[in-house]
Amino acid sequence: MNLILASASPRRSAILTQLGIPFRIEPSHVAEDGNGRSPLDWPRLFAEEKAVDVSLSHPREFVLGFDTLVFLDGKPLGKPKDKHDALRMLSALSGRSHQVISGVAVARGGKIFSSGAEKTEVFFRSLDPSEIAEYIDSGEPMDKAGAYAIQGKGARFVESIQGCYYNVVGLPVTRTLKMLKNLEEIENG
Amino acid sequence: MNLILASASPRRSAILTQLGIPFRIEPSHVAEDGNGRSPLDWPRLFAEEKAVDVSLSHPREFVLGFDTLVFLDGKPLGKPKDKHDALRMLSALSGRSHQVISGVAVARGGKIFSSGAEKTEVFFRSLDPSEIAEYIDSGEPMDKAGAYAIQGKGARFVESIQGCYYNVVGLPVTRTLKMLKNLEEIENG
Repeated sequence: MNLILASASPRRSAILTQLGIPFRIEPSHVAEDGNGRSPLDWPRLFAEEKAVDVSLSHPREFVLGFDTLVFLDGKPLGKPKDKHDALRMLSALSGRSHQVISGVAVARGGKIFSSGAEKTEVFFRSLDPSEIAEYIDSGEPMDKAGAYAIQGKGARFVESIQGCYYNVVGLPVTRTLKMLKNLEEIENG
Repeated sequence: MNLILASASPRRSAILTQLGIPFRIEPSHVAEDGNGRSPLDWPRLFAEEKAVDVSLSHPREFVLGFDTLVFLDGKPLGKPKDKHDALRMLSALSGRSHQVISGVAVARGGKIFSSGAEKTEVFFRSLDPSEIAEYIDSGEPMDKAGAYAIQGKGARFVESIQGCYYNVVGLPVTRTLKMLKNLEEIENG
């Protein structure tokens, strides 16, 4: 089965490789558009948009799209605009739990084949202002949704999680594998 | 603060490095001895034994010891003896949850300074015999407690976790950082 990953994220490539799944990369350049839908639906919606976008150029192949967002009290936290914004986000996440939702979608021939979303609860310990400042100075938060990377130095903030770890990194493992298994069964008859 | 890691595990080195903690490695060669204690106490006990062992040769430095065990119904699963044993363990873990407990200890001058243990609940999805066989053929299970590595191909078996992810890999992050912070406060007055 020829599989395309519609994402430029090196983290998602690394997870698929770790799982032993062959694929090639064709990033999507679609502009994400919430389109009036509830933000909690965005990860799935954006994953669908990316998969369909790439699928239009490669209609015979299965295309996997993903999108990951960090939610605090039901509101999405994007990537920080600047250091001040990162400080605001990390201070808000300190000492409490938030949700990371990753959407996953498979498209073929410009149509969604299947899609879904997975939620992981992430608990941050209480952070000192000094360690937030030190983390921001490391530069790691700036291109990360919610201003942290659990797979990087941001690991030091995470007391515990409930759900799939790799979903926080950007790819819901069990859900994705189940979708791929269904595709294989369809392909094989 | 000079810190010694009393472990040859490349995974533990990687996590400490990821957290930005400077250290050097002096593996312990102590023989682990349950000493009549309940298996659930072993991770902490073995972490203490390793830290004390290395600390005797480096009495002026703080030494960090770790031990990680996988428990199913309160019984420890060690490293598989052979492929058959790996099959037995992975079949037992399929479709249910088990516990991973990591002990951590700090020693100085041959004495335990502080120690503790952290538990993470790990939920496996139901595994097909064919994927267990494929995983065993990859060779990954053979040197892993419980016959899987969550940071490797074994990620495909894990539906969700509850607790610290890195604790399953071998190092309880928040607990270790808290201990190191206490040491720093003592060192600095």
